[in-house]
Amino acid sequence: MDNINISQAVIQRLPRYYRYLGELNDEGVSRISSRELSELMHVTASQIRADLNHFGGFGQVGYGYNVRNLYDEIGKILGLDENHKLVVIGAGHLGQALSNYVNFERRGFHIMGIFDIDPDLVGKKIRDVYVSPMNELESFIRNNDVDIAVLTIPKTSAVEVAKTLVNCGIKAIWNFAHVDLPVPYDVIVENVHLSESLMRLSYNIKR
Amino acid sequence: MDNINISQAVIQRLPRYYRYLGELNDEGVSRISSRELSELMHVTASQIRADLNHFGGFGQVGYGYNVRNLYDEIGKILGLDENHKLVVIGAGHLGQALSNYVNFERRGFHIMGIFDIDPDLVGKKIRDVYVSPMNELESFIRNNDVDIAVLTIPKTSAVEVAKTLVNCGIKAIWNFAHVDLPVPYDVIVENVHLSESLMRLSYNIKR
Repeated sequence: MDNINISQAVIQRLPRYYRYLGELNDEGVSRISSRELSELMHVTASQIRADLNHFGGFGQVGYGYNVRNLYDEIGKILGLDENHKLVVIGAGHLGQALSNYVNFERRGFHIMGIFDIDPDLVGKKIRDVYVSPMNELESFIRNNDVDIAVLTIPKTSAVEVAKTLVNCGIKAIWNFAHVDLPVPYDVIVENVHLSESLMRLSYNIKR
Repeated sequence: MDNINISQAVIQRLPRYYRYLGELNDEGVSRISSRELSELMHVTASQIRADLNHFGGFGQVGYGYNVRNLYDEIGKILGLDENHKLVVIGAGHLGQALSNYVNFERRGFHIMGIFDIDPDLVGKKIRDVYVSPMNELESFIRNNDVDIAVLTIPKTSAVEVAKTLVNCGIKAIWNFAHVDLPVPYDVIVENVHLSESLMRLSYNIKR
Protein backbone atom coordinates (compact mmCIF):
# COMPACT_ATOMS: atom_id res chain seq x y z
CA MET A 1 0.00 0.00 0.00
CA ASP A 2 1.30 3.43 -0.92
CA ASN A 3 0.78 5.87 1.91
CA ILE A 4 2.83 8.66 0.42
CA ASN A 5 -0.14 10.62 -0.86
CA ILE A 6 -2.25 10.52 2.25
CA SER A 7 -2.64 14.07 3.44
CA GLN A 8 -1.70 15.04 6.98
CA ALA A 9 -5.34 16.08 7.43
CA VAL A 10 -6.42 12.47 6.97
CA ILE A 11 -3.62 11.28 9.23
CA GLN A 12 -4.83 13.71 11.88
CA ARG A 13 -8.20 11.98 11.80
CA LEU A 14 -7.05 8.35 11.67
CA PRO A 15 -6.36 7.92 15.41
CA ARG A 16 -9.92 8.94 16.13
CA TYR A 17 -11.29 6.30 13.75
CA TYR A 18 -8.96 3.85 15.43
CA ARG A 19 -10.33 4.74 18.85
CA TYR A 20 -13.97 4.38 17.82
CA LEU A 21 -13.39 1.12 15.97
CA GLY A 22 -11.50 -0.26 18.99
CA GLU A 23 -14.41 0.61 21.25
CA LEU A 24 -16.94 -0.92 18.84
CA ASN A 25 -14.83 -4.06 18.63
CA ASP A 26 -14.65 -4.25 22.44
CA GLU A 27 -18.43 -3.97 22.54
CA GLY A 28 -18.74 -6.93 20.17
CA VAL A 29 -19.87 -4.95 17.12
CA SER A 30 -18.57 -6.78 14.04
CA ARG A 31 -19.70 -4.52 11.22
CA ILE A 32 -20.86 -0.96 10.78
CA SER A 33 -22.05 1.21 7.89
CA SER A 34 -20.52 4.57 7.11
CA ARG A 35 -23.88 6.10 8.08
CA GLU A 36 -23.84 4.50 11.53
CA LEU A 37 -20.20 5.43 12.06
CA SER A 38 -21.09 8.95 10.94
CA GLU A 39 -23.80 9.29 13.61
CA LEU A 40 -21.49 7.95 16.28
CA MET A 41 -18.53 10.15 15.41
CA HIS A 42 -20.42 13.29 14.35
CA VAL A 43 -18.61 13.32 11.01
CA THR A 44 -20.38 13.18 7.65
CA ALA A 45 -20.69 9.73 6.05
CA SER A 46 -19.10 11.07 2.88
CA GLN A 47 -16.10 12.26 4.88
CA ILE A 48 -15.77 8.81 6.41
CA ARG A 49 -15.98 7.10 3.02
CA ALA A 50 -13.47 9.52 1.51
CA ASP A 51 -11.05 9.08 4.41
CA LEU A 52 -11.25 5.31 4.54
CA ASN A 53 -11.07 4.96 0.76
CA HIS A 54 -7.47 6.07 1.04
CA PHE A 55 -6.71 2.70 2.52
CA GLY A 56 -8.15 0.53 -0.19
CA GLY A 57 -11.85 0.99 0.52
CA PHE A 58 -12.51 -1.72 3.07
CA GLY A 59 -16.23 -1.01 3.03
CA GLN A 60 -18.58 -3.07 0.91
CA VAL A 61 -21.89 -1.86 -0.46
CA GLY A 62 -24.76 -3.29 1.58
CA TYR A 63 -22.40 -4.67 4.19
CA GLY A 64 -20.49 -1.75 5.55
CA TYR A 65 -17.15 -2.01 7.25
CA ASN A 66 -15.79 -5.04 9.02
CA VAL A 67 -14.94 -3.42 12.36
CA ARG A 68 -12.12 -5.73 13.37
CA ASN A 69 -10.44 -5.69 9.94
CA LEU A 70 -10.64 -1.94 9.63
CA TYR A 71 -9.33 -1.52 13.19
CA ASP A 72 -6.37 -3.77 12.44
CA GLU A 73 -5.67 -2.12 9.09
CA ILE A 74 -5.67 1.38 10.54
CA GLY A 75 -3.47 0.12 13.36
CA LYS A 76 -0.97 -1.14 10.79
CA ILE A 77 -1.09 2.12 8.85
CA LEU A 78 -0.35 3.96 12.10
CA GLY A 79 2.55 1.62 12.77
CA LEU A 80 0.94 0.22 15.92
CA ASP A 81 1.78 -3.34 14.88
CA GLU A 82 5.44 -2.53 15.42
CA ASN A 83 7.33 -2.06 18.65
CA HIS A 84 9.03 1.19 19.54
CA LYS A 85 11.60 1.83 22.21
CA LEU A 86 11.30 5.12 24.05
CA VAL A 87 13.24 7.15 26.53
CA VAL A 88 11.57 9.86 28.58
CA ILE A 89 13.79 12.84 29.27
CA GLY A 90 12.57 14.82 32.24
CA ALA A 91 11.12 12.94 35.22
CA GLY A 92 8.99 15.79 36.54
CA HIS A 93 5.22 15.48 36.85
CA LEU A 94 4.61 15.40 33.12
CA GLY A 95 7.39 12.87 32.49
CA GLN A 96 6.01 10.73 35.27
CA ALA A 97 2.46 11.03 33.96
CA LEU A 98 3.56 9.81 30.53
CA SER A 99 5.76 7.06 31.98
CA ASN A 100 2.83 5.77 34.01
CA TYR A 101 0.50 5.61 31.03
CA VAL A 102 -0.06 1.88 30.57
CA ASN A 103 -1.95 2.32 27.32
CA PHE A 104 1.16 3.44 25.47
CA GLU A 105 2.80 0.10 26.21
CA ARG A 106 -0.25 -1.76 25.03
CA ARG A 107 0.17 -0.01 21.66
CA GLY A 108 3.80 -1.08 21.34
CA PHE A 109 5.52 1.96 22.85
CA HIS A 110 7.95 0.63 25.44
CA ILE A 111 9.63 3.01 27.86
CA MET A 112 13.15 1.71 28.24
CA GLY A 113 14.65 4.52 30.28
CA ILE A 114 13.81 7.75 32.10
CA PHE A 115 16.40 10.47 32.57
CA ASP A 116 16.69 13.61 34.65
CA ILE A 117 19.39 15.98 35.82
CA ASP A 118 17.81 16.37 39.28
CA PRO A 119 19.72 14.12 41.74
CA ASP A 120 16.57 13.92 43.88
CA LEU A 121 14.75 12.20 41.04
CA VAL A 122 17.58 9.92 39.93
CA GLY A 123 17.08 6.43 41.37
CA LYS A 124 13.33 6.90 41.74
CA LYS A 125 11.32 4.00 40.33
CA ILE A 126 8.46 4.76 37.94
CA ARG A 127 6.58 1.55 37.25
CA ASP A 128 9.47 -0.80 36.35
CA VAL A 129 12.00 1.79 35.32
CA TYR A 130 14.53 3.64 37.47
CA VAL A 131 15.30 7.29 36.68
CA SER A 132 18.90 7.57 35.42
CA PRO A 133 21.21 10.58 35.40
CA MET A 134 21.47 12.57 32.17
CA ASN A 135 25.14 11.70 31.65
CA GLU A 136 24.08 8.11 30.91
CA LEU A 137 21.63 9.15 28.20
CA GLU A 138 23.84 8.89 25.14
CA SER A 139 25.30 5.47 25.84
CA PHE A 140 21.87 4.19 26.85
CA ILE A 141 20.30 5.23 23.55
CA ARG A 142 23.12 3.72 21.52
CA ASN A 143 23.18 0.45 23.47
CA ASN A 144 19.44 -0.08 23.56
CA ASP A 145 18.42 0.77 20.04
CA VAL A 146 16.03 3.48 21.22
CA ASP A 147 14.08 5.15 18.39
CA ILE A 148 11.81 7.68 20.13
CA ALA A 149 12.67 10.31 22.75
CA VAL A 150 10.01 12.05 24.79
CA LEU A 151 11.09 15.53 25.84
CA THR A 152 9.43 16.88 28.98
CA ILE A 153 12.14 19.32 30.00
CA PRO A 154 12.10 23.14 30.06
CA LYS A 155 12.48 24.94 26.74
CA THR A 156 15.80 26.39 27.88
CA SER A 157 17.54 23.01 27.69
CA ALA A 158 15.40 21.30 25.04
CA VAL A 159 17.29 22.51 21.96
CA GLU A 160 20.65 21.35 23.33
CA VAL A 161 19.26 17.96 24.35
CA ALA A 162 17.60 17.55 20.95
CA LYS A 163 20.98 18.01 19.25
CA THR A 164 22.45 15.27 21.44
CA LEU A 165 19.51 12.99 20.62
CA VAL A 166 19.98 13.48 16.90
CA ASN A 167 23.71 12.70 17.23
CA CYS A 168 22.82 9.45 19.01
CA GLY A 169 20.60 8.41 16.11
CA ILE A 170 17.14 9.11 17.55
CA LYS A 171 14.62 9.13 14.71
CA ALA A 172 11.66 10.78 16.40
CA ILE A 173 11.05 13.25 19.20
CA TRP A 174 7.77 13.67 21.03
CA ASN A 175 8.31 17.23 22.16
CA PHE A 176 6.48 18.80 25.10
CA ALA A 177 8.98 21.65 25.50
CA HIS A 178 7.52 24.92 24.28
CA VAL A 179 10.11 25.54 21.60
CA ASP A 180 10.62 24.51 17.97
CA LEU A 181 13.42 21.98 17.76
CA PRO A 182 15.96 22.40 14.94
CA VAL A 183 16.44 18.85 13.65
CA PRO A 184 17.46 17.38 10.28
CA TYR A 185 14.64 16.70 7.82
CA ASP A 186 14.71 12.95 8.45
CA VAL A 187 14.01 13.30 12.18
CA ILE A 188 10.33 13.42 13.07
CA VAL A 189 9.13 15.91 15.65
CA GLU A 190 5.61 15.73 17.04
CA ASN A 191 4.93 18.76 19.21
CA VAL A 192 2.51 18.92 22.09
CA HIS A 193 2.44 22.57 23.06
CA LEU A 194 0.02 22.67 25.96
CA SER A 195 0.04 26.42 26.39
CA GLU A 196 -0.90 26.86 22.72
CA SER A 197 -3.82 24.50 23.23
CA LEU A 198 -4.94 26.58 26.21
CA MET A 199 -4.69 29.75 24.09
CA ARG A 200 -6.97 28.24 21.45
CA LEU A 201 -9.44 27.42 24.19
CA SER A 202 -9.22 30.98 25.42
CA TYR A 203 -9.77 32.34 21.92
CA ASN A 204 -12.84 30.21 21.41
CA ILE A 205 -14.32 31.31 24.75
CA LYS A 206 -13.88 34.92 23.76
CA ARG A 207 -15.48 34.37 20.38
CA MET B 1 -12.68 44.00 15.28
CA ASP B 2 -14.72 41.21 13.75
CA ASN B 3 -13.07 37.86 14.39
CA ILE B 4 -15.98 35.76 13.19
CA ASN B 5 -14.46 35.01 9.83
CA ILE B 6 -11.01 34.00 10.99
CA SER B 7 -10.52 30.38 10.07
CA GLN B 8 -9.57 27.82 12.67
CA ALA B 9 -6.42 27.21 10.60
CA VAL B 10 -5.26 30.75 11.30
CA ILE B 11 -6.25 30.41 14.96
CA GLN B 12 -4.16 27.24 15.15
CA ARG B 13 -1.14 29.26 14.07
CA LEU B 14 -1.69 32.38 16.22
CA PRO B 15 -0.21 31.01 19.47
CA ARG B 16 3.02 30.25 17.63
CA TYR B 17 3.25 33.87 16.37
CA TYR B 18 2.53 34.96 19.90
CA ARG B 19 5.38 32.83 21.25
CA TYR B 20 7.92 34.13 18.72
CA LEU B 21 6.89 37.74 19.17
CA GLY B 22 7.10 37.35 22.94
CA GLU B 23 10.63 35.97 22.64
CA LEU B 24 11.66 38.76 20.27
CA ASN B 25 10.22 41.33 22.65
CA ASP B 26 12.11 39.76 25.56
CA GLU B 27 15.28 40.02 23.50
CA GLY B 28 14.69 43.73 22.97
CA VAL B 29 13.75 43.51 19.29
CA SER B 30 11.28 46.32 18.60
CA ARG B 31 10.43 45.73 14.93
CA ILE B 32 10.67 42.95 12.41
CA SER B 33 9.85 42.49 8.74
CA SER B 34 7.70 39.64 7.46
CA ARG B 35 10.82 38.32 5.71
CA GLU B 36 12.84 38.20 8.93
CA LEU B 37 9.95 36.63 10.82
CA SER B 38 9.63 34.17 7.97
CA GLU B 39 13.25 33.03 8.31
CA LEU B 40 12.92 32.70 12.05
CA MET B 41 9.68 30.72 11.98
CA HIS B 42 10.28 28.71 8.81
CA VAL B 43 6.99 29.90 7.36
CA THR B 44 6.71 31.78 4.08
CA ALA B 45 6.58 35.58 4.30
CA SER B 46 3.38 35.59 2.25
CA GLN B 47 1.76 33.22 4.75
CA ILE B 48 2.77 35.54 7.56
CA ARG B 49 1.37 38.59 5.78
CA ALA B 50 -1.85 36.77 4.95
CA ASP B 51 -2.29 35.53 8.51
CA LEU B 52 -1.54 38.83 10.18
CA ASN B 53 -3.66 40.81 7.71
CA HIS B 54 -6.70 39.20 9.33
CA PHE B 55 -6.08 41.41 12.31
CA GLY B 56 -6.02 44.72 10.56
CA GLY B 57 -2.58 44.53 8.96
CA PHE B 58 -0.35 45.88 11.66
CA GLY B 59 2.67 45.84 9.36
CA GLN B 60 3.76 48.95 7.53
CA VAL B 61 5.64 48.97 4.23
CA GLY B 62 9.31 49.71 4.81
CA TYR B 63 8.94 49.43 8.54
CA GLY B 64 7.69 45.95 9.21
CA TYR B 65 5.82 44.94 12.31
CA ASN B 66 6.06 46.64 15.65
CA VAL B 67 6.89 43.60 17.78
CA ARG B 68 5.36 44.79 21.03
CA ASN B 69 2.14 46.06 19.42
CA LEU B 70 1.65 42.90 17.43
CA TYR B 71 2.38 40.75 20.48
CA ASP B 72 -0.19 42.67 22.53
CA GLU B 73 -2.78 42.62 19.74
CA ILE B 74 -2.49 38.87 19.24
CA GLY B 75 -2.65 38.41 23.00
CA LYS B 76 -5.94 40.33 23.03
CA ILE B 77 -7.31 38.33 20.11
CA LEU B 78 -6.45 35.15 22.02
CA GLY B 79 -8.21 36.53 25.10
CA LEU B 80 -5.00 36.60 27.13
CA ASP B 81 -5.74 40.09 28.41
CA GLU B 82 -8.63 38.62 30.40
CA ASN B 83 -8.54 36.52 33.54
CA HIS B 84 -9.92 33.02 33.64
CA LYS B 85 -10.73 30.90 36.65
CA LEU B 86 -9.93 27.22 36.34
CA VAL B 87 -10.53 24.05 38.27
CA VAL B 88 -8.40 20.97 37.65
CA ILE B 89 -10.31 17.72 38.01
CA GLY B 90 -7.97 14.81 38.62
CA ALA B 91 -4.91 15.37 40.82
CA GLY B 92 -2.83 12.54 39.36
CA HIS B 93 0.53 13.21 37.72
CA LEU B 94 -0.93 15.02 34.73
CA GLY B 95 -3.24 17.15 36.88
CA GLN B 96 -0.30 18.00 39.13
CA ALA B 97 1.91 18.82 36.15
CA LEU B 98 -0.68 21.25 34.81
CA SER B 99 -1.37 22.74 38.25
CA ASN B 100 2.34 23.38 38.71
CA TYR B 101 2.70 25.16 35.39
CA VAL B 102 3.43 28.74 36.44
CA ASN B 103 3.22 30.06 32.89
CA PHE B 104 -0.52 29.46 32.71
CA GLU B 105 -1.05 31.87 35.58
CA ARG B 106 1.15 34.46 33.94
CA ARG B 107 -1.24 34.37 30.98
CA GLY B 108 -4.30 34.94 33.13
CA PHE B 109 -5.34 31.35 33.80
CA HIS B 110 -5.79 31.04 37.56
CA ILE B 111 -6.21 27.63 39.13
CA MET B 112 -8.80 28.12 41.87
CA GLY B 113 -9.33 24.52 42.89
CA ILE B 114 -8.11 20.97 42.31
CA PHE B 115 -10.39 17.98 42.83
CA ASP B 116 -9.95 14.25 43.09
CA ILE B 117 -11.91 11.23 44.30
CA ASP B 118 -8.80 9.60 45.79
CA PRO B 119 -8.77 10.23 49.59
CA ASP B 120 -4.97 9.89 49.53
CA LEU B 121 -4.74 12.94 47.27
CA VAL B 122 -7.39 15.07 49.00
CA GLY B 123 -5.72 17.59 51.31
CA LYS B 124 -2.45 17.50 49.38
CA LYS B 125 -1.14 20.98 48.59
CA ILE B 126 -0.12 21.77 45.01
CA ARG B 127 1.50 25.18 44.93
CA ASP B 128 -1.06 27.25 46.86
CA VAL B 129 -4.08 25.06 46.31
CA TYR B 130 -5.30 22.13 48.38
CA VAL B 131 -6.85 19.15 46.61
CA SER B 132 -10.57 18.94 47.49
CA PRO B 133 -12.93 15.97 47.37
CA MET B 134 -15.13 15.61 44.29
CA ASN B 135 -18.36 16.11 46.26
CA GLU B 136 -17.37 19.74 46.75
CA LEU B 137 -16.90 20.38 43.03
CA GLU B 138 -20.37 21.65 42.13
CA SER B 139 -20.72 24.18 44.93
CA PHE B 140 -17.15 25.34 44.39
CA ILE B 141 -17.74 26.08 40.72
CA ARG B 142 -20.96 27.94 41.43
CA ASN B 143 -19.53 29.95 44.32
CA ASN B 144 -16.28 30.90 42.64
CA ASP B 145 -17.45 31.86 39.19
CA VAL B 146 -15.18 29.27 37.55
CA ASP B 147 -15.29 29.32 33.75
CA ILE B 148 -12.81 26.62 32.67
CA ALA B 149 -12.50 23.02 33.83
CA VAL B 150 -9.41 20.93 33.12
CA LEU B 151 -10.24 17.23 32.90
CA THR B 152 -7.38 14.88 33.69
CA ILE B 153 -9.42 11.89 34.76
CA PRO B 154 -9.88 8.48 33.09
CA LYS B 155 -12.21 8.31 30.10
CA THR B 156 -14.59 6.06 32.03
CA SER B 157 -15.67 8.89 34.33
CA ALA B 158 -15.06 11.87 32.04
CA VAL B 159 -18.44 11.92 30.30
CA GLU B 160 -20.35 11.87 33.57
CA VAL B 161 -18.19 14.61 35.08
CA ALA B 162 -18.55 16.72 31.93
CA LYS B 163 -22.35 16.61 32.31
CA THR B 164 -22.03 17.86 35.87
CA LEU B 165 -19.71 20.63 34.74
CA VAL B 166 -22.15 21.80 32.09
CA ASN B 167 -24.95 21.83 34.66
CA CYS B 168 -22.84 24.03 36.93
CA GLY B 169 -22.38 26.56 34.12
CA ILE B 170 -18.82 25.75 33.02
CA LYS B 171 -18.24 27.35 29.62
CA ALA B 172 -15.09 25.55 28.51
CA ILE B 173 -13.43 22.20 29.11
CA TRP B 174 -9.78 21.47 28.49
CA ASN B 175 -10.11 17.74 28.02
CA PHE B 176 -7.23 15.30 28.46
CA ALA B 177 -9.51 12.26 28.80
CA HIS B 178 -9.39 10.10 25.70
CA VAL B 179 -13.05 10.40 24.85
CA ASP B 180 -15.28 12.84 22.99
CA LEU B 181 -17.39 14.80 25.44
CA PRO B 182 -21.06 15.34 24.59
CA VAL B 183 -21.65 18.98 25.46
CA PRO B 184 -24.11 21.64 24.24
CA TYR B 185 -22.97 23.73 21.28
CA ASP B 186 -22.16 26.74 23.44
CA VAL B 187 -19.66 24.88 25.60
CA ILE B 188 -16.12 24.87 24.23
CA VAL B 189 -14.08 21.69 24.35
CA GLU B 190 -10.38 21.72 23.55
CA ASN B 191 -9.09 18.17 23.41
CA VAL B 192 -5.54 17.09 24.11
CA HIS B 193 -5.48 13.43 23.17
CA LEU B 194 -1.92 12.40 23.91
CA SER B 195 -2.22 8.87 22.57
CA GLU B 196 -3.45 10.24 19.24
CA SER B 197 -0.43 12.51 19.09
CA LEU B 198 1.80 9.49 19.71
CA MET B 199 0.04 7.59 16.91
CA ARG B 200 0.74 10.41 14.46
CA LEU B 201 4.37 10.26 15.48
CA SER B 202 4.36 6.53 14.90
CA TYR B 203 2.74 6.95 11.48
CA ASN B 204 5.34 9.48 10.43
CA ILE B 205 8.21 7.23 11.54
CA LYS B 206 6.78 4.40 9.47
CA ARG B 207 6.37 6.59 6.45
